[in-house]
Amino acid sequence: MQLTPQTSTRREEKMEKAVYYFGNGKAEGNSKMKEILGGKGANLAEMVSLGIPVPPGFTISTEVCSEFYKSGKAIPEKVWQDVLKSVSRLETEIGKKFADPTNPLLVSVRSGARASMPGMMDTILNLGLNDETTEGLAKISQNPRFAYDSYRRFIHMYSNVVMGMNGSILETELEDLKDSKKVHQDTELTAEDLKKLCDVFKKRVFELTGKKFPMDPLSQLKGAVSAVFESWNTPRAMTYRKLHGYPDSWGTAVNVQAMVFGNRGNDSATGVAFTRDPSTGEKRFFGEFLINAQGEDVVAGIRTPEPIIQLEKEMPKAYKELCGIYQKLETHYKDMQDIEFTIEQNKLWMLQTRNGKRSAKAAIQIAMDMIKEGLISEKEALLRVDPLQLDQLLHPTLDPKAKKNVLAKGLPASPGAATGQIVFTPEDAEKFSELGKKCILVRIETSPEDIHGMVVAQGILTTRGGMTSHAAVVARGMGKCCVAGCGEIDVNYNAQTMSVKGKTFKKGDVITLDGSTGEVFEGEIKTIEPEIGAQFGELMKLSDKYRKLGILTNADTPKDAKTAREFGAEGIGLCRTEHMFFDAQRIDAVREMIVADNREDREKALTKLLPMQKGDFLEIFKQMQGYPVTIRLLDPPLHEFVPQTDEEIKHLSEKLDLDFNKLKSKVKSLHEFNPMLGHRGCRLAVTYPEIYAMQARAIAEAAAELKSQGVKVIVDIMIPLINTEKELALMRQLVEKEVLATQSRLNIKFDYTIGTMIELPGAALVADDIAKQADFFSFGTNDLTQTTLGLSRDDSGKFLPTYVEKGLFSADPFVSVDQKAVGKLIKLAVDLGRKTKSNLKIGVCGEHGGDPASVEFFHRVGLSYVSCSPYRVPIARLAAARAAIKEEGH
Amino acid sequence: MQLTPQTSTRREEKMEKAVYYFGNGKAEGNSKMKEILGGKGANLAEMVSLGIPVPPGFTISTEVCSEFYKSGKAIPEKVWQDVLKSVSRLETEIGKKFADPTNPLLVSVRSGARASMPGMMDTILNLGLNDETTEGLAKISQNPRFAYDSYRRFIHMYSNVVMGMNGSILETELEDLKDSKKVHQDTELTAEDLKKLCDVFKKRVFELTGKKFPMDPLSQLKGAVSAVFESWNTPRAMTYRKLHGYPDSWGTAVNVQAMVFGNRGNDSATGVAFTRDPSTGEKRFFGEFLINAQGEDVVAGIRTPEPIIQLEKEMPKAYKELCGIYQKLETHYKDMQDIEFTIEQNKLWMLQTRNGKRSAKAAIQIAMDMIKEGLISEKEALLRVDPLQLDQLLHPTLDPKAKKNVLAKGLPASPGAATGQIVFTPEDAEKFSELGKKCILVRIETSPEDIHGMVVAQGILTTRGGMTSHAAVVARGMGKCCVAGCGEIDVNYNAQTMSVKGKTFKKGDVITLDGSTGEVFEGEIKTIEPEIGAQFGELMKLSDKYRKLGILTNADTPKDAKTAREFGAEGIGLCRTEHMFFDAQRIDAVREMIVADNREDREKALTKLLPMQKGDFLEIFKQMQGYPVTIRLLDPPLHEFVPQTDEEIKHLSEKLDLDFNKLKSKVKSLHEFNPMLGHRGCRLAVTYPEIYAMQARAIAEAAAELKSQGVKVIVDIMIPLINTEKELALMRQLVEKEVLATQSRLNIKFDYTIGTMIELPGAALVADDIAKQADFFSFGTNDLTQTTLGLSRDDSGKFLPTYVEKGLFSADPFVSVDQKAVGKLIKLAVDLGRKTKSNLKIGVCGEHGGDPASVEFFHRVGLSYVSCSPYRVPIARLAAARAAIKEEGH
Repeated sequence: MQLTPQTSTRREEKMEKAVYYFGNGKAEGNSKMKEILGGKGANLAEMVSLGIPVPPGFTISTEVCSEFYKSGKAIPEKVWQDVLKSVSRLETEIGKKFADPTNPLLVSVRSGARASMPGMMDTILNLGLNDETTEGLAKISQNPRFAYDSYRRFIHMYSNVVMGMNGSILETELEDLKDSKKVHQDTELTAEDLKKLCDVFKKRVFELTGKKFPMDPLSQLKGAVSAVFESWNTPRAMTYRKLHGYPDSWGTAVNVQAMVFGNRGNDSATGVAFTRDPSTGEKRFFGEFLINAQGEDVVAGIRTPEPIIQLEKEMPKAYKELCGIYQKLETHYKDMQDIEFTIEQNKLWMLQTRNGKRSAKAAIQIAMDMIKEGLISEKEALLRVDPLQLDQLLHPTLDPKAKKNVLAKGLPASPGAATGQIVFTPEDAEKFSELGKKCILVRIETSPEDIHGMVVAQGILTTRGGMTSHAAVVARGMGKCCVAGCGEIDVNYNAQTMSVKGKTFKKGDVITLDGSTGEVFEGEIKTIEPEIGAQFGELMKLSDKYRKLGILTNADTPKDAKTAREFGAEGIGLCRTEHMFFDAQRIDAVREMIVADNREDREKALTKLLPMQKGDFLEIFKQMQGYPVTIRLLDPPLHEFVPQTDEEIKHLSEKLDLDFNKLKSKVKSLHEFNPMLGHRGCRLAVTYPEIYAMQARAIAEAAAELKSQGVKVIVDIMIPLINTEKELALMRQLVEKEVLATQSRLNIKFDYTIGTMIELPGAALVADDIAKQADFFSFGTNDLTQTTLGLSRDDSGKFLPTYVEKGLFSADPFVSVDQKAVGKLIKLAVDLGRKTKSNLKIGVCGEHGGDPASVEFFHRVGLSYVSCSPYRVPIARLAAARAAIKEEGH
Repeated sequence: MQLTPQTSTRREEKMEKAVYYFGNGKAEGNSKMKEILGGKGANLAEMVSLGIPVPPGFTISTEVCSEFYKSGKAIPEKVWQDVLKSVSRLETEIGKKFADPTNPLLVSVRSGARASMPGMMDTILNLGLNDETTEGLAKISQNPRFAYDSYRRFIHMYSNVVMGMNGSILETELEDLKDSKKVHQDTELTAEDLKKLCDVFKKRVFELTGKKFPMDPLSQLKGAVSAVFESWNTPRAMTYRKLHGYPDSWGTAVNVQAMVFGNRGNDSATGVAFTRDPSTGEKRFFGEFLINAQGEDVVAGIRTPEPIIQLEKEMPKAYKELCGIYQKLETHYKDMQDIEFTIEQNKLWMLQTRNGKRSAKAAIQIAMDMIKEGLISEKEALLRVDPLQLDQLLHPTLDPKAKKNVLAKGLPASPGAATGQIVFTPEDAEKFSELGKKCILVRIETSPEDIHGMVVAQGILTTRGGMTSHAAVVARGMGKCCVAGCGEIDVNYNAQTMSVKGKTFKKGDVITLDGSTGEVFEGEIKTIEPEIGAQFGELMKLSDKYRKLGILTNADTPKDAKTAREFGAEGIGLCRTEHMFFDAQRIDAVREMIVADNREDREKALTKLLPMQKGDFLEIFKQMQGYPVTIRLLDPPLHEFVPQTDEEIKHLSEKLDLDFNKLKSKVKSLHEFNPMLGHRGCRLAVTYPEIYAMQARAIAEAAAELKSQGVKVIVDIMIPLINTEKELALMRQLVEKEVLATQSRLNIKFDYTIGTMIELPGAALVADDIAKQADFFSFGTNDLTQTTLGLSRDDSGKFLPTYVEKGLFSADPFVSVDQKAVGKLIKLAVDLGRKTKSNLKIGVCGEHGGDPASVEFFHRVGLSYVSCSPYRVPIARLAAARAAIKEEGH
């Protein structure tokens, strides 16, 4: 582990105490000390202080983990002395001693980081056993089988974790033994068998590691503690941390605790439980247990555990105590708890408590219930629900009970589930849809020309492209299920087939997608419609009470606008006019405009488009009446609208009655090396002002018409890709001229504003100047990320995964805004813009507006609103509320 | 004219005095007041104060010009009253009166902005003439012909400039009159003819404008002053200002001056002269004059003027006075003067003095001479030479005397002249070159694969691409003549021909290019080799004395390195390793590496490249011994190295013994939507570390080998396209590992540093973090401009000209660094980087390093060095010195 010098210095200075004892009703730590004691250790200490029965022990702090690595993977001597003192104290308190055959102390050694990393690090149980203490344990327990079973488990675990032996070698010995005895279950082996097995194990350990299995419990302990610290840096642990964004510098604590045994007979048991139902949130004790078993047996699933309610019958006293404890814990922690317990000879011991993981539905239910129960405040309740989880609630899911045959796995690009017949072209999707057939649009990748097919398909499957590919972005915007970048599948457009794992599927075959997992299934699988309960509405209402950010939506169609309004959007923050251009009836007029040689021909084509654009705006304004509609004028480079293949060009040339070669050379001349940085946005209007003029006129005519009908229209006109004040001044002049002319022609006035996207670093850097010409700013964080980081969203798929894997980016910057560089630029632009106009309305539109971490950042830098796709609106509402609450210091 | 409110407010507050009188040895203005009086007015005032004979008059200030536009194109009444007062004063002083037939006052009305805008604005002479005063003038002068000639000129000029009449109408009347009189020269017309012509003129003016020609001199004056102010905003004047970067807000002054006449007989004359030779800089009085003529005759070239030395014979007294005056002026202004004078009846009048324009050669000669003469200091001398002019001196030029047949005109992409036979492929260029034939490489556009042909060609001609296209940039780097974007020429690669204006040229035909004008000529034209005099060396020595910036060069080959050293480069600031990859012998190994499926195959191919790269570095290190060599590791996206057409791919598949389809699909998979923002720079090494490892090893082996031979090697290894500290840390680790391994293997140590390009906004914004891992920074301002402004250099040709034309960009941001946005980012990164390491070496590499305005900016923000192409090194040296001197407040 590489620690930066600063960090280690800080720790060195701070580290005062290395070992924290707990037991006998007293603890040196508490639940607030997760950074030092890890989650498990902090909660063990807390439970002890609460008077809850916990096997005594001690926690070696996370700071020792850093020391351990700094000392070349050695436990510092000072720390070891503290450990020895704690061992003595433990021996005294429970009256058992390490290496004492008459009453041996046995301990568990467990990892425990600040946040839970289940299964990622190592655990050793039954430490303290050796040839003598095992024999002693056999006598005391009057259960030799239990003693030797514990011993062989310990040797197996220790030799693997501490001595680095391949675990399967001893596994084989066990299997061989069972074969020779002709038995199937471990439990069928006798004490004698197990004792022999222990000898075999020790022999094999010596043969393979060259070291004798340690008999001294203190040596065993030293090895185990070191091994737990080392397990902090196993590849799987490191990967897990990267995936969850946990820093390497945290380190793990080590918990050493007296063993208790749930496998000492039928008066013993072990179990796990939740204080409320983690799936539904229902307020009922929920969990399961096994009689005469150890914790690992519950997890391993070798035997089928019984529901917790059964415990009342089997061990009523312990059950009653357990109920008292779980209620105490929930009231104390004011959250649903996930607990582990062991009953040893009718005596209940608590081994763990932590806040329980839960489904989205449960999270909402529990939070809302706990407000009513007076357990938590409204603000606390909002902090309890992870905004990203809400996504689950808004989309259909696959029936968990259905039989599934996974064909392939791609990226979970847009959540939800969908079943339908395969089609390979947007035209077929439309045909199927007209016939009332459900279909899945399968493409190598999608482009804006496929939108009409995407709209009608149940789901979208692509074989190329990442989480932010065209397909993924558009599908999320539509709230439609999408699996992207499923490279295993090979699509052949000519043959109209797709092949995967030797199977070939043709048009019309049925497949099912799970956009939440990225899985593709053969055939139809039943889906379950989402059910949004009343609690959800309450949560949203509560969010609106606390949030300060406005929540708008990105919507290009009346349908999107309607959906977004239903999800609570307070207007449209981004209405992309180009999507309207791709409509089948319009694209030809658009193309005619593009290939025109002169202004006159261009204006002729634009005149055809005017009524269509006006129609779009009429519908959208109506849907959003009383709320602002921010319309972005044409943005993409013109070549996105023209066909590229010779065949398509030929077709178009016939349609438009143009010379093929001339048309082809026009198409060729539109080609760009870096279209992202090319002739697009306001640059189109600098060279062809008539395009924006037409759009401005369409907007103005629609607004005027509706106003005269008494509809309340709020129009914000947004200019894309601005770099300088002069550019925006020119655009403002152009748009204002058209709007004023329309108002005067129709003899009706309406209010409108003209603002700009801030999507280039250049614009952010001179935002004070640009603000002079702008009524509002809207950060286009997608493009701003692309240009600031010099990172093409469409091309980054080749290296971004390696970047995330190597920890060079903590998250995909197209999913969660890069707060360091891009964020600095955003903050700068906000400050500069408000320096010029202190009340400047500043928002953000683009994918980041629906990402909770980004929303929190946007709140912090003082934006006025975020705009996101309709299905992300609830997420943004909650995230915005949480941001406001966190800012208050919650 | 649009004035921002701020500007007009400022002016309104400041304007105290509107009219500045001069005459009779006293002036209210002086030469420092160019902002208010314009250049002409300020210098007239100064000459008057110096006791030099100047026709008296007054200057209406530039501030009135702003007032004029603010008042809806009207002269404010207060100002007009001041004008009337000045007219009275003028009348009193020279004893003539407006409208007085017995002794009429005649004036000239001339524009005069802060900087000279020759021919851009209007002038009116002989104002004050009307039917009566003309008759009076005829009597007083006893020269009716002179009087009526002046009158008809005045009517012509005034009706055109003030009354908006098309000038050619009266021109036709004059021609008709000459035809009817059967004469050819204006001078052959009699006084009577001219008088009649005046009547015809006035009649025509009335017919066509509906207004009578004004007879009142004060009305004439008011009209003329307004017209001069209005001429500030004629399209040609606005275009001129845009081209020269003069702001619209300057405004023009108006100079009203008593007329003097050089055309009153053989005792009168007019002339222009320079106080030194403007072509060579030789210290001799240089100019020409015409007896009995007006200034416009000299300019119009109707008669051939005589050399100024003749004036001594013709008018010895006036000549002697003129010599005294010119010496006085030169001594006073401490610069070579460009003067205009008129002699009226043996009396000398000075009409203008200003610093004279001069050739590069003259500029240097004059500056160096003036130091020796004690006239100016070394610093002043450096400020007298425009660095951009030096370019003229470093390239061959066409013999100005040769007959030329212009075929077409493209962009002057790289200066110099070249003659040679047409070739259409780099391979043919090499073949011709091997046979000792000079050739011109003609391409539609060039790509990195053409470099081997560009190297051997005399010049390069492309039909597409702008001033910053690949061809232009590479040619400038090589100091090779290039005409780019010559769209008139149609190249047909298949037929191996080029056609222009109906003519077709084939391979082997001879053409000539002038890279300084963009012209393409048919056949061979003699070229003149540049002659760099001793003065040039002195100038460079002087520059080095004052500059603070280091001047390094961009050089990829030993030849470039040598050239740059000769031009005074102090090391290499950018050695691009990819250019070495395009070499015909290497490209296949490079391609093998790229198409490899796994690391092993990739390393095998890289092993082939290692000795070649090492060889490059050996040569370059030797050329630069004792000076730093900054080597940039591989930067471009890999698809730049692979063939694109099916035919080429087939060829390669045979060569590499690979399946065609597999190879094609590999090539296809390398395609990127926005390669500029794609998988390139250090991102290549994040995914394929072995590439940089090979390069680091090649560098280390070369350095070690030379050090053991006693060669002094200074190695700076530069990582491109860094965004974050973590990226650079990973790269540093990778490079260091190879270097240390090589040092230990070869048992020799050498010093080296590892730094990074700052070429992404993201990097600039977190430069404090990045500096922790960097030994130096080098701004890649090309890419930084592209990403900051979201502007693809290769695609901007479609709209950047419109941007410059509409004044949205004052200059092409790829030629002169955009100081507002990009500059702000540079400044930020410098400050952040030095916050982490106060002595951090920070330079710039890229085209901007050779642009004087940019160099000045880089000096101001505290860079350590600039690096530019070899032929730009002298320019950068001078520009850096000037920057340092200007900073001191010169």
